[in-house]
Amino acid sequence: MAYDRIYNFSAGPAALPEHILEHVRDEMLNYRGSGMSVLEMSHRSPEVIEIIENAEKHLRTLLNIPSEYAVVFNQGGASLQFAMAPMNLSQKGKPVSVLHTGYWTQKAIGEIKKFSEVSILASGENEGFKSLPSCPDRSSTANSSYLHMCTNNTIYGTQWQKIPPMESDAPIVCDMSSDFLSRPFEMKQFGMVFAGAQKNVGPSGLAIVIIRKDLAERCDENAHSKFLQYRSHIEADSAYNTPNVFGIYFAEKVFAHLIEMGGLARVQENNEKKAATIYSVIDDADFYSCPIAIKDRSRMNIVMRIRGGNEDLEKKFNSEATTAGLSGLKGHRAIGGLRASIYNAQSQAGVDRLATFMKDFARKNG
Amino acid sequence: MAYDRIYNFSAGPAALPEHILEHVRDEMLNYRGSGMSVLEMSHRSPEVIEIIENAEKHLRTLLNIPSEYAVVFNQGGASLQFAMAPMNLSQKGKPVSVLHTGYWTQKAIGEIKKFSEVSILASGENEGFKSLPSCPDRSSTANSSYLHMCTNNTIYGTQWQKIPPMESDAPIVCDMSSDFLSRPFEMKQFGMVFAGAQKNVGPSGLAIVIIRKDLAERCDENAHSKFLQYRSHIEADSAYNTPNVFGIYFAEKVFAHLIEMGGLARVQENNEKKAATIYSVIDDADFYSCPIAIKDRSRMNIVMRIRGGNEDLEKKFNSEATTAGLSGLKGHRAIGGLRASIYNAQSQAGVDRLATFMKDFARKNG
Repeated sequence: MAYDRIYNFSAGPAALPEHILEHVRDEMLNYRGSGMSVLEMSHRSPEVIEIIENAEKHLRTLLNIPSEYAVVFNQGGASLQFAMAPMNLSQKGKPVSVLHTGYWTQKAIGEIKKFSEVSILASGENEGFKSLPSCPDRSSTANSSYLHMCTNNTIYGTQWQKIPPMESDAPIVCDMSSDFLSRPFEMKQFGMVFAGAQKNVGPSGLAIVIIRKDLAERCDENAHSKFLQYRSHIEADSAYNTPNVFGIYFAEKVFAHLIEMGGLARVQENNEKKAATIYSVIDDADFYSCPIAIKDRSRMNIVMRIRGGNEDLEKKFNSEATTAGLSGLKGHRAIGGLRASIYNAQSQAGVDRLATFMKDFARKNG
Repeated sequence: MAYDRIYNFSAGPAALPEHILEHVRDEMLNYRGSGMSVLEMSHRSPEVIEIIENAEKHLRTLLNIPSEYAVVFNQGGASLQFAMAPMNLSQKGKPVSVLHTGYWTQKAIGEIKKFSEVSILASGENEGFKSLPSCPDRSSTANSSYLHMCTNNTIYGTQWQKIPPMESDAPIVCDMSSDFLSRPFEMKQFGMVFAGAQKNVGPSGLAIVIIRKDLAERCDENAHSKFLQYRSHIEADSAYNTPNVFGIYFAEKVFAHLIEMGGLARVQENNEKKAATIYSVIDDADFYSCPIAIKDRSRMNIVMRIRGGNEDLEKKFNSEATTAGLSGLKGHRAIGGLRASIYNAQSQAGVDRLATFMKDFARKNG
């Protein structure tokens, strides 16, 4: 591998496409003959306006986004959207319903409670979030402002296979931070989808929001900060104030790359193959185990234990993997163990190297 | 000039130090032997924690920040701070006082009104913001939550020469977006200082907040979104959620560079010399004029007219300057004319080139 680069299995910020990093490097001092770095260009310049327009155009192509939805390149990560969603979309006397599936929906619930009643429709808490709960029928949200859910749970390693997992009378607001653009989905089934960029899209500091325009009109313009209203960012084509230009510039290149690859159906195929490679090593022997219900296993974040939770062996695994150029495999502190995050930019080659390492390690320590 | 780079006089995002852009380029594929791009590194990794710590350490050195103040690397630009400041610092029954000096204080007033009464202590509005108003005495803020002000007005080209311009019984909250780190100031005289990074610090998408810790404890923890409370970001050392890692990484390099240059007194000297170079060309002939009261002229954004407002000549100036490699000189649409923004990273060489161009243009068109 060129540049002595390692294989990065971090949960995010995470591996990014090497050829895009090269491209960014090559035009760092002079963006397309402008005589300036992209970092130095006014957000009102024709060059930057074109970057933002192209980013939106590519994203609309990738996801086939209907015209009644707006695309907003925002800041503050998914965490700010946890607050902005209820601020903008919650309605008096109508609770926000939640499918509670782990750490990130818990964070969202904390913020939603600052603005609205919360109704937990289903929860995986009693199962330690190791499986996803059964969903109620659509009428359960009939009196809700909206339904909040998270498609992929980075820490616990679960992922809804079918999205959305239930029909809903209320619009669905979906945190897709850690599996956005890893597979196709039907935008029309959601009211709003948001994602921090730092998993499948680009550098941190950028949040992507796709929102049905009428929902952005729900809140009282006079009652809230203008910055914190989605309508401000929609009206200003993501330049209500100075946006994260570098983040959008990077994202534009990633979106174009995914189109070039053949779109999200192809991306999904790759991701399923990568995930299957690792899960099959886990399942083929007694050495490794995955605590997650098979039906709910994530294709993005694979959590595993060695001998059901041997911390000494896990530490040894992690240390030897790092030496072998396989980095970021330590599990989240909340649940321990090991975790391999294999977002879009993780190559099959990287995954194959990890699979080989795992088999070797099991043989030597089994 | 290498890389066919032009001289960039944009109001922001703006010129950045070329040697730092080179450094960023050179380690884009592999940060200090980590085998990863800085764009790919977990915000919980030792490398990124060190970057954030060093950025804060250098900033504390540059500004001699007392220990009772916290440094927060935030997102959402100055615009989000316009909302967060009153959300966190305003107190029931006590208005927020404002020194109203133009476009950006107007934006701030709009946001403050969503959370608090506003009391305009002094305003330059009747003078079209072409001069800064006289300030009342300190007791005028005795019953205020805080006093909001802006040191440099990017659009109108005014700048308080002495900061703060008045004593205040209430803590002063200061928007320094467009002259932060262009000169020394005494942090103790302020309750909170904030700035978008995209003028003197680095790429857009990063906001820097320096806040007296007790002020961050004013607001009711239970009443507001957790993300929108400064205390959340202080407690988490700017990693409450994934921060703009690339922005902080770039800022750390700029802070170190300013220390190496000799600190902010030296930076100020350079900036005063650069500004004097341009203002003397304006004042030396009848061709150019600066509408701003001499005592209030900005060292960062120099606004000027040709023959008191000849738009054809101004258009010609701008077009020929662009051809000559001098970019971004068009005035803000709100006031027209021409504007040269000469932040820290604009070199004396660039300013000299502009001065020569201005003299030539005046000779040919005078």
